[in-house]
Amino acid sequence: MFYPTGTKNKYFNNVIIYKNRGMSLESLINDANDYYLENDIAVIYKKPTPIGLIDVDYKKGEIKKAYFKEKSTFDYNGIYREKYIDFEAKETKNKTSFPLANIHPHQFEHLKRILAHKGIAFLIVSINDEYYILKGEDLLEFINTSDRKSIPYSYFTDKCYRIDKTIRPIINYLKVIDKIYFKGE
Amino acid sequence: MFYPTGTKNKYFNNVIIYKNRGMSLESLINDANDYYLENDIAVIYKKPTPIGLIDVDYKKGEIKKAYFKEKSTFDYNGIYREKYIDFEAKETKNKTSFPLANIHPHQFEHLKRILAHKGIAFLIVSINDEYYILKGEDLLEFINTSDRKSIPYSYFTDKCYRIDKTIRPIINYLKVIDKIYFKGE
Repeated sequence: MFYPTGTKNKYFNNVIIYKNRGMSLESLINDANDYYLENDIAVIYKKPTPIGLIDVDYKKGEIKKAYFKEKSTFDYNGIYREKYIDFEAKETKNKTSFPLANIHPHQFEHLKRILAHKGIAFLIVSINDEYYILKGEDLLEFINTSDRKSIPYSYFTDKCYRIDKTIRPIINYLKVIDKIYFKGE
Repeated sequence: MFYPTGTKNKYFNNVIIYKNRGMSLESLINDANDYYLENDIAVIYKKPTPIGLIDVDYKKGEIKKAYFKEKSTFDYNGIYREKYIDFEAKETKNKTSFPLANIHPHQFEHLKRILAHKGIAFLIVSINDEYYILKGEDLLEFINTSDRKSIPYSYFTDKCYRIDKTIRPIINYLKVIDKIYFKGE
């Protein structure tokens, strides 16, 4: 019923990376996670999108009708420096603010739970061709203290942690996580 | 493109549980995880099965052709008592032994990685209508010191940790995890 897909995806070899400046945030993070796995830095995976099956030909192992289901968690989770890590990646084309409608209500519940259990939880937000880490705690504080339906760009430049692009991985977000969560270690 | 599916599944209310003695291991674990989430004990989810998309009608949000992909990780992960937890659930109808072919080579690699990063990793094995926790470390030791292609039933009764059935959750596996990994805490 399962088609083996062999070893993990190798879409993102260096050649392709250098040619493709317009890589999606998801691709950049997957590439970083591949790098972390290969170099024994962290074990972090994107969760597959949940699918609702309607019609499956089990003999052929083929899905003939299905639909995408909504996630109630964040997209990525895993282990880094012995800690549980859990995050969501979001891109906005909006230049002045990040609309909070990008995050579903049950994802806020998930965030609260992870923080209550002392996990590391955050958002990676791509805005104005920059990448920021927005701590889960800060996101909840923003929501609790503001009626705004979006987070202004200035909030990211003032209060969040920018991920500067490097060669490989391009988005080395764990380096910023070190600074935020493992200060002085 | 996404069909909201509302709140999380509520298939397993008590009535159904009591009637359905033949619940699959997966259902039992999902039910336990629901219980842990509701009671703020742990945040553990089953990862969705990864799907390879071939033909999608994005207007309708409908998958018209796709196939199941093989997982390179374990099925479940999350956070418990501030620790990263990662495990696989396996059922065998074989009464005398658990065939190691149930575990894919890349899953062994995943297991080694999680242990190297100090995560809690194990298997929940259902054999002879009993449920056992097989520590990841013990599984690797078995493989490294034996040429057997299966783990005999006696290994489970002698070396593993049995999960006794309770009312709710029926498979309270975290209670056994407490004894194994959080002794004296």
